[in-house]
Amino acid sequence: MKNFLSVQDVPNLMVLVQEALLLKKDPFAESHLGRNKTLGLIFFNASLRTRLSTQKAAQNLGMQVMVMNVAQDGWALEMADGVVMDGDKVEHVKEAAAVIGQYCDLIGVRSFAGLTDRAADYGEEVIHKFVQHAGVPVLSLESATRHPLQSLADLVTMEELKPAAAGRADKVKVVLTWAPHPKALPQAVPNSFAEWMNRADGSLGPVEFVIAHPEGYQLAPEFVNGARVTHDQREAFEGADFIYTKNWSSYQHYGQVLSKDPAWTVDAEKMALTNHARFMHCLPVRRNVIVTDEVLDGPHSVVIRQAGNRVCAAQAVLKHMLLDLLYA
Amino acid sequence: MKNFLSVQDVPNLMVLVQEALLLKKDPFAESHLGRNKTLGLIFFNASLRTRLSTQKAAQNLGMQVMVMNVAQDGWALEMADGVVMDGDKVEHVKEAAAVIGQYCDLIGVRSFAGLTDRAADYGEEVIHKFVQHAGVPVLSLESATRHPLQSLADLVTMEELKPAAAGRADKVKVVLTWAPHPKALPQAVPNSFAEWMNRADGSLGPVEFVIAHPEGYQLAPEFVNGARVTHDQREAFEGADFIYTKNWSSYQHYGQVLSKDPAWTVDAEKMALTNHARFMHCLPVRRNVIVTDEVLDGPHSVVIRQAGNRVCAAQAVLKHMLLDLLYA
Amino acid sequence: MKNFLSVQDVPNLMVLVQEALLLKKDPFAESHLGRNKTLGLIFFNASLRTRLSTQKAAQNLGMQVMVMNVAQDGWALEMADGVVMDGDKVEHVKEAAAVIGQYCDLIGVRSFAGLTDRAADYGEEVIHKFVQHAGVPVLSLESATRHPLQSLADLVTMEELKPAAAGRADKVKVVLTWAPHPKALPQAVPNSFAEWMNRADGSLGPVEFVIAHPEGYQLAPEFVNGARVTHDQREAFEGADFIYTKNWSSYQHYGQVLSKDPAWTVDAEKMALTNHARFMHCLPVRRNVIVTDEVLDGPHSVVIRQAGNRVCAAQAVLKHMLLDLLYA
Repeated sequence: MKNFLSVQDVPNLMVLVQEALLLKKDPFAESHLGRNKTLGLIFFNASLRTRLSTQKAAQNLGMQVMVMNVAQDGWALEMADGVVMDGDKVEHVKEAAAVIGQYCDLIGVRSFAGLTDRAADYGEEVIHKFVQHAGVPVLSLESATRHPLQSLADLVTMEELKPAAAGRADKVKVVLTWAPHPKALPQAVPNSFAEWMNRADGSLGPVEFVIAHPEGYQLAPEFVNGARVTHDQREAFEGADFIYTKNWSSYQHYGQVLSKDPAWTVDAEKMALTNHARFMHCLPVRRNVIVTDEVLDGPHSVVIRQAGNRVCAAQAVLKHMLLDLLYA
Repeated sequence: MKNFLSVQDVPNLMVLVQEALLLKKDPFAESHLGRNKTLGLIFFNASLRTRLSTQKAAQNLGMQVMVMNVAQDGWALEMADGVVMDGDKVEHVKEAAAVIGQYCDLIGVRSFAGLTDRAADYGEEVIHKFVQHAGVPVLSLESATRHPLQSLADLVTMEELKPAAAGRADKVKVVLTWAPHPKALPQAVPNSFAEWMNRADGSLGPVEFVIAHPEGYQLAPEFVNGARVTHDQREAFEGADFIYTKNWSSYQHYGQVLSKDPAWTVDAEKMALTNHARFMHCLPVRRNVIVTDEVLDGPHSVVIRQAGNRVCAAQAVLKHMLLDLLYA
Repeated sequence: MKNFLSVQDVPNLMVLVQEALLLKKDPFAESHLGRNKTLGLIFFNASLRTRLSTQKAAQNLGMQVMVMNVAQDGWALEMADGVVMDGDKVEHVKEAAAVIGQYCDLIGVRSFAGLTDRAADYGEEVIHKFVQHAGVPVLSLESATRHPLQSLADLVTMEELKPAAAGRADKVKVVLTWAPHPKALPQAVPNSFAEWMNRADGSLGPVEFVIAHPEGYQLAPEFVNGARVTHDQREAFEGADFIYTKNWSSYQHYGQVLSKDPAWTVDAEKMALTNHARFMHCLPVRRNVIVTDEVLDGPHSVVIRQAGNRVCAAQAVLKHMLLDLLYA
């Protein structure tokens, strides 16, 4: 694995998930691998889980980590080619990426969608510029359209918690449901989750994947792919094994908040329709907007485990990137 | 020692002070203890000494350290239970603390008093939420009402510098004096110093502890405890061995600045009333407001030594927390 | 080498350059040297290259690194002596520097020129206060008037790329040229580059050093020293081996932008006047203002190599400072 930008970069999902689970059991078993290797974590946006879990994962592998908040520690970067840089952008991403690549063996980049220009966001300009110019492998810490480290942690969590699989005839039913939120959020997490679920069969076993959202919230076709889509949240919840909840802004009416309908909040009564489903969310989560306290604090909520699995997920990815760096 | 939030968490003050002094002599003697252990330092407020000294202390013990400024690196946290989170708070402390606890073996938290709601501040909501939800031991980096790492460093400094003790009949006279300041400051440092002095007998030897401040600046009763209180700063200084100076805002008229009276500034003429007392302050200090240049730059000022002792103090605390973690 | 503030601190330039080149070949050869030593990096201003390359250099030597953005992580520092600190400055640099010196074995400081008070800037108040009060060696991460880590990296780069030297009769021709920029910038980089070039003979071999700039942009006499100055950029470029480009604000009309004349932008047509000169810039660079895309992206641009050499340059400096600390 050279870069890690999406599920497309993963040659074998099942191997990566099993790798993560092994590293979770014995986090320091590979602490020689990262010796004298440096990971740069470059944040264009705020971060808690990704910041700390990726740092921890790298340290578990014996790597050094350098963290930089671009705008606070440095300055604004120009992304466009050919411009006369006489405004407020101090440095072009071409130089910034290439220079950071001189100091780091691997680079992680977080850069959210701007939610105003869909073509630009879905073109993944920032992370692609880093890939193009850094000269070293690049790891997504959430880009405009995807959050693959989250999706891998999600899959690891589901692998740990899936209903007893052996001899089970039924598919594992996974529901990705939209929920309301006061502000416009990117589609990165749901896109990515959908993308990983659509390839999860080999790992989780047979999966029935359903996406539930109000009208106007259809994800981009390349992410929906073959998944079943419904506007009826209750129908979707029936018999589900995993309820993955997340808000996102509209893809069609790009970046807009079309609904804050509290009828889409996940509550105990809806969860009762499921097959004792686990409640999942990538966090941070707005309590009593996205989900009620009762569900989030209840016995089927696995959000903290999910967040904890960000370490072993990142560690599996970094391990494969280091192996590629060292032996490829 | 599981958590370190106040002097109440210290089973034996003298042992902890002596431990700090040993670690000061040989800072790297225990560098195996923290192997593969990670300390998270979570700052809700600015920090210089605590930030660097605690980091250094952890590294001396072989720990990894991850530092996070909550608001700048992440986002605003909701502290109240049961609220509908549709405002500007992005994440609840319940999740944030639990998640950070997934990535760290120990967590240090700095969260100052807001100085508007006394009950909330003295309820120590933030640090208690971390203790409640983190799932790992918590270390105060200064909370709303206490700064125990500072107090331990203060006690270590006094132990190093106390008048030749052997056979001495007199008590060590310690004065905590209020001094003016342009802005409203929390009571955490004086509270904590008082709390530690009131238990210091076993460590320092017999102590006469006096608190001097203008009217209206009485500390909370649980911190004053048995200490003698006076409004006459000069009388307090007479024969003193240590002058511990600090501004604080009013506890009774909560968070208010009742006086900026320069007559309370510590100067050479007042210091001449003492028994060649050492001048102490936790820093940062406003020169020529709290204390004159002459005293601060004079031979009896020990503020830099005090700050230096923050390392061995933090290291003693972290060592005991690690031992508890490893063998308890 | 105790402190590293300017070329004056370097006993032998050639030795330092060769040291850097050796460390570039084998960056981890001296990873025992920094064991249990801590470098503090204190930033009063933004930084990308210096932040990451100095951190990397220290880690290559086995040092621990603590990074602090003074204003964001801490608070505003008072620099003036004798003032009544009742304004917005929370701590005096006397205490701050002395305290940081308690926690670090070496301290790096970045503090740019304010560009309003020439005497203050050229007095190098901030970095000198650190030298005076820190009690440990100090390393410039760019001060008001100099950027010696950059200059050393520049010299290393020129040493690597200078025209085949053996038996060469001609001098190496080095041109420092001013170029336009929308904002007022300090003179630190050109000052420092000039200062190093004026001593580079022993290292690079015989050097012809020319400074080209519009009228009103003469550097301070102590930096120009014996260098030839011209206002004719084209004449300067003729036969040059290295074109070092940089904007700076006026020294005479202190801190002013007297010209934004695009005729001074470095372009391919001017580069064609040179002896296939390498294009150098310290970065960040404003594309199509300072230099055209064509030149910056062309085969003679060595700006990324220059930035990469910041690691081995800083490592050579830190190595010598550590040796001085350990054995002096």
